Amino acid sequence: MLATLSGYRAVSRPQRTLPFPSPSRSPIAWSTGTQEMGSVTVYGPPISPAVSRVLACLLEKDVVFNLVNIDMSKAQHKSPDFLKIQPFGQVPAFQDEHTTLFESRAICRYICDKYADRGNRSLLGRRGGGLVERAHVEQWLEAEGQSFNPPSSTLVFQLAFAPHMGLPQDAAAILLNEGKLAKVLDVYERRLEESRFLAGDVFSLADLSHLPNGRYVRAGGKVELFTSRKNVARWWEEISMRPSWQKVVEMQPAPPSF
Amino acid sequence: MLATLSGYRAVSRPQRTLPFPSPSRSPIAWSTGTQEMGSVTVYGPPISPAVSRVLACLLEKDVVFNLVNIDMSKAQHKSPDFLKIQPFGQVPAFQDEHTTLFESRAICRYICDKYADRGNRSLLGRRGGGLVERAHVEQWLEAEGQSFNPPSSTLVFQLAFAPHMGLPQDAAAILLNEGKLAKVLDVYERRLEESRFLAGDVFSLADLSHLPNGRYVRAGGKVELFTSRKNVARWWEEISMRPSWQKVVEMQPAPPSF
Repeated sequence: MLATLSGYRAVSRPQRTLPFPSPSRSPIAWSTGTQEMGSVTVYGPPISPAVSRVLACLLEKDVVFNLVNIDMSKAQHKSPDFLKIQPFGQVPAFQDEHTTLFESRAICRYICDKYADRGNRSLLGRRGGGLVERAHVEQWLEAEGQSFNPPSSTLVFQLAFAPHMGLPQDAAAILLNEGKLAKVLDVYERRLEESRFLAGDVFSLADLSHLPNGRYVRAGGKVELFTSRKNVARWWEEISMRPSWQKVVEMQPAPPSF
Repeated sequence: MLATLSGYRAVSRPQRTLPFPSPSRSPIAWSTGTQEMGSVTVYGPPISPAVSRVLACLLEKDVVFNLVNIDMSKAQHKSPDFLKIQPFGQVPAFQDEHTTLFESRAICRYICDKYADRGNRSLLGRRGGGLVERAHVEQWLEAEGQSFNPPSSTLVFQLAFAPHMGLPQDAAAILLNEGKLAKVLDVYERRLEESRFLAGDVFSLADLSHLPNGRYVRAGGKVELFTSRKNVARWWEEISMRPSWQKVVEMQPAPPSF
């Protein structure tokens, strides 16, 4: 897997991607280069938490993909062509041959189901773990989406993106959501006292899905939310050191505040 | 299915449910009564949107279940016994034999996977629809969880529950979230112009998942968010008239403001 991870290179954009953005806007395309040119394309900038969630999943699954940048500063995510595949005008959008999808967690589930025999085969529960093991992954993936994501997304914007965009920070919103996130991490601390990962003994999509916001919350100055909790700290250290995530971090530009 | 839906009756709480709440608190237990006494137990009050999502799914799937009330006014959802199965102290919690789960959408997925051969067999995509059809359901189920749920949950609290609880309403929050929800429903309107249901030609978990908050937003006085959009209005009429959901509504008490 490391060999594949280290094999990234820019490639010319294949014809089979959707006609977006226009070639004149210099899309970025990536491929592992060790497999046949892929049918999978991700549309969106790696700096986006939701985009980076999908990229981490593709890298875990060792699936070849093309990455087409979407310049949100030019509102490319609101263009008619993009809205055809992502009707909410958000990133990422995703394409696999004739299938297009949006919503990062739904895309990740599809990748795990479609490429069940590639790369990490335990992201939705181990082979033989059956539907109960998948249900435990889904349970903690929903906990991420419903409990961890709302306060952490606000913190990501306030702590990491607002300064980068020259916008004022909302101190009250930061305080409120730091408190909410602390309560969520208190629950995680107890769970991770009895379990190596959130859903059980193996790294899963539930753990992976925390990486994007977790990274920005920490980079934004709130690292103690993680380090002050022994089991959360141990868990974060382990999941964030995975080669897949390290590669995603490499793909992200480094804003001044990170 | 109608025969089963009409066959509900209160039953004594079976021994296999978790030791919560204490018997002295008069738990409510339900069963369709037409099948062997079920192994499935839902913990939580039907008035809760997340609880009612799970109940609607169980009724669609024609799965026998017991319903154990959790009196949130007495903080039963924060008791040590309850926190063992729902560590966030929210409702519902769910039990099927030796498996316990939380997070309503994860519970619904488990029910659909575990009871694949019962009741409605298309909630996660039709048989033969393959993983792409399931992915389309997952995509719109995530749209519900990530785009529809946040503003509608705020409206549910402000419009329906706050008056019932004697709390003041936050007019600014109502205005802000009504605007956010309107934008989400604009996307739905375009989608439902080309598709009978959100994920395609058949009713799915993605549609079902909108019923709880949709009902309370409408009951709270914002019915025009739905009726002013032709395709959303047609869709809502169809999904809310399903016998499964009508039965859930019957199970809910009627607060003064509904």
